[in-house]
Amino acid sequence: MKAPQILSGFQDLLPGDMIARNKVMSMIRSVFESHGFEPIETPSLEYYETLTGKEGGESEMLMYDFTDHGDRHVGLIYDLTVPISRVMATYQDIPKPFKRYQIQRVYRAERPQKGRFREFYQCDVDIFGTASPLSDAEIVSILSDSLVGMGFKDFNVLVNHRGVMQGIMRTCGVPKETLKESIVIVDKLDKIGPDGVARELEAKGVPSAGKIVEMISVQGDAGVVIPTLKGMLSGDEEAVQALDNIKQIIELAGAMNAKVKFDPSLARGQSYYTGPVFEARLETPKIGSVAGGGRYDNLIGIFSGNQVCATGASLGIDRIMAAMREIGMISDTKTIAKVQICHFGEGSTPLALECAKTIRESGVPCDLYCGDGDIRKQIKYASKKGVPYIAIIGEDEAKSSTVLIKNMETGEQEKVEFSKLGEVASQLA
Amino acid sequence: MKAPQILSGFQDLLPGDMIARNKVMSMIRSVFESHGFEPIETPSLEYYETLTGKEGGESEMLMYDFTDHGDRHVGLIYDLTVPISRVMATYQDIPKPFKRYQIQRVYRAERPQKGRFREFYQCDVDIFGTASPLSDAEIVSILSDSLVGMGFKDFNVLVNHRGVMQGIMRTCGVPKETLKESIVIVDKLDKIGPDGVARELEAKGVPSAGKIVEMISVQGDAGVVIPTLKGMLSGDEEAVQALDNIKQIIELAGAMNAKVKFDPSLARGQSYYTGPVFEARLETPKIGSVAGGGRYDNLIGIFSGNQVCATGASLGIDRIMAAMREIGMISDTKTIAKVQICHFGEGSTPLALECAKTIRESGVPCDLYCGDGDIRKQIKYASKKGVPYIAIIGEDEAKSSTVLIKNMETGEQEKVEFSKLGEVASQLA
Repeated sequence: MKAPQILSGFQDLLPGDMIARNKVMSMIRSVFESHGFEPIETPSLEYYETLTGKEGGESEMLMYDFTDHGDRHVGLIYDLTVPISRVMATYQDIPKPFKRYQIQRVYRAERPQKGRFREFYQCDVDIFGTASPLSDAEIVSILSDSLVGMGFKDFNVLVNHRGVMQGIMRTCGVPKETLKESIVIVDKLDKIGPDGVARELEAKGVPSAGKIVEMISVQGDAGVVIPTLKGMLSGDEEAVQALDNIKQIIELAGAMNAKVKFDPSLARGQSYYTGPVFEARLETPKIGSVAGGGRYDNLIGIFSGNQVCATGASLGIDRIMAAMREIGMISDTKTIAKVQICHFGEGSTPLALECAKTIRESGVPCDLYCGDGDIRKQIKYASKKGVPYIAIIGEDEAKSSTVLIKNMETGEQEKVEFSKLGEVASQLA
Repeated sequence: MKAPQILSGFQDLLPGDMIARNKVMSMIRSVFESHGFEPIETPSLEYYETLTGKEGGESEMLMYDFTDHGDRHVGLIYDLTVPISRVMATYQDIPKPFKRYQIQRVYRAERPQKGRFREFYQCDVDIFGTASPLSDAEIVSILSDSLVGMGFKDFNVLVNHRGVMQGIMRTCGVPKETLKESIVIVDKLDKIGPDGVARELEAKGVPSAGKIVEMISVQGDAGVVIPTLKGMLSGDEEAVQALDNIKQIIELAGAMNAKVKFDPSLARGQSYYTGPVFEARLETPKIGSVAGGGRYDNLIGIFSGNQVCATGASLGIDRIMAAMREIGMISDTKTIAKVQICHFGEGSTPLALECAKTIRESGVPCDLYCGDGDIRKQIKYASKKGVPYIAIIGEDEAKSSTVLIKNMETGEQEKVEFSKLGEVASQLA
């Protein structure tokens, strides 16, 4: 008999994966909540026309859509932005600013690639109903705090603004027809370097490629870089305002201890961004972007008719988990139980049950062996599972009301009187 | 412009719902983990033929199925039993007994009813690879511990066995053709009473309806009831063995403090159960079943060819949440933030940012107001959100490095020196 297959691009998360993932998720959640963001959840299925309302062609290609039993054309959500837009249009009395976070699975009918799945978690934080730079700074600060909370040390939250990017292009005389392409090229600075960017821009026939590269390559402290660029873009009022906006966001986020940096080459793909854009980039390990976002003041209005300002970001859990694994930030714990109770022989079962109850009550996860098999089989099982301690209860222990606690790593063992088990157990957590 | 609709039978969980739900979920998770159950997650989509492998016709009716872009016939999972069966067939080297829990959304294309949704969480605990009564007792014990952990006091975990039910039917001469129907009627004892059951059985032409009702109505301590029924079923070897099995399970679970009770009328619908069956029933509030399960030793084998014993149960989060609301076990907290920072006037922003950082670092969720608006608007916002404390920082406070902490319920307020804010804040959690 052939075992049934999992669908390509989907994954089974077994205990080893899930234990690490739950830890990371719970850390992220607690950072979000410490900033006062509220949890929400929305359906996995929405009307197809709701899902396509936003971007048309782009999203249709990657959507799982079908007709349900009631002849409704429906689709699996492919991001959390469309659902929250529908929510904001539906519940217009939610007090604003509304800070929400949402951690859910989304679905993409794309060709699966290494490390990219057709079903994966998205983890969004957004603030609705205000255009204040403080709200953008809160998003930057929460990205920074999340990465610090997870244990990352070497990273930056980069900030740029569409107005700056477009100002650079305008000032350098890039025609409208090649604007989009040129921005895509500029966004590659980190990967292909200034010479690469210049070469690609020239190949597209962009004039003053050198000047563009000069501007986007400006690096250093925001206090220096912003005035420098202001000078370069002084003729472009929109760009100058955008630079002032970035300055404010960086100062405010910095005052909340965020690791924040201005990067004039940062573009972020989505066409719906209207102002500042953000990206969290890991330097160690050097895997690049693990979160991105920006301000999108025109998107919610598509649903509700009345405009709702919005700014936010999305963390990529899969990339973050991969990075943590790469530099050993995730322990290889494969089991929840800290203690495995092994029991055998006359009279051992009642004590084993008592023992499980006592250890659990002391707050320590405890697995009571409930299969068949002699003590050697039980110990082998504990060792295969990787449980750190075993509590052995045989006939002798049952008679003397003692438990033998063994450290599976060091092999050390200790005879514990049953009356003291709770006390001893609470130190094993 | 008409706001886009949510699909019928689906729900938006807004902060008020989610905060309560997250608390309940996290309590359940911690009970499962204290028993050493390991978390896993599997895809929401599976091959259609995997999903229909188990029950055929029954499940097809309620499945969301469709053909994906790669011409695969796929379906959304409608329970967590099919996916775990596939997992057990795929990863045959998982050490057994394998205790896993799985909390995920499942999908049913049924007609939605009050309190029943097309998308809802299922919350399963199962033990694979052993037929020992201790494993059944662990499931009973975990159901009991979960309900106690959530704060329920008046409930029972009922236990019966298919062998007992069938033994009663055999002993009373119920023919094979009416066996299934008769069991369904018997299962209604709790709802329609002994006379109702007798009437319905008679209407179906079942002989000795009175004798059946007598047997299934036996109530009381297992130590008395089991011998009584043993006497009544003494000619039926299978039923007698089943009664011994129940006795063991109840004793073992009782030793782990489970609130467990033998109920010979308990049937549980699913045809795949092979031995003991369980059901957790709330008495206060009197809403009945909130969890059910049993032993299903033949199901995993459908996928893997080789038999894997299994026992487990599933908790219904939606019913549990409804019950908790009914008797006021869930507080109506609508916001995560414990403190809302309101700030206005010259020089207040840097102190407001410092203040947010300090309160967050002391472990208290803190929302920094980041909209526009004067202090009255900010206080109104805090009040509408229902946040318990506000921290006011105006020009005076900024100058004197103080913060005004106000209890929104009592109206009491206290001027706190900034240097002491961390200390004061940590008491607001």
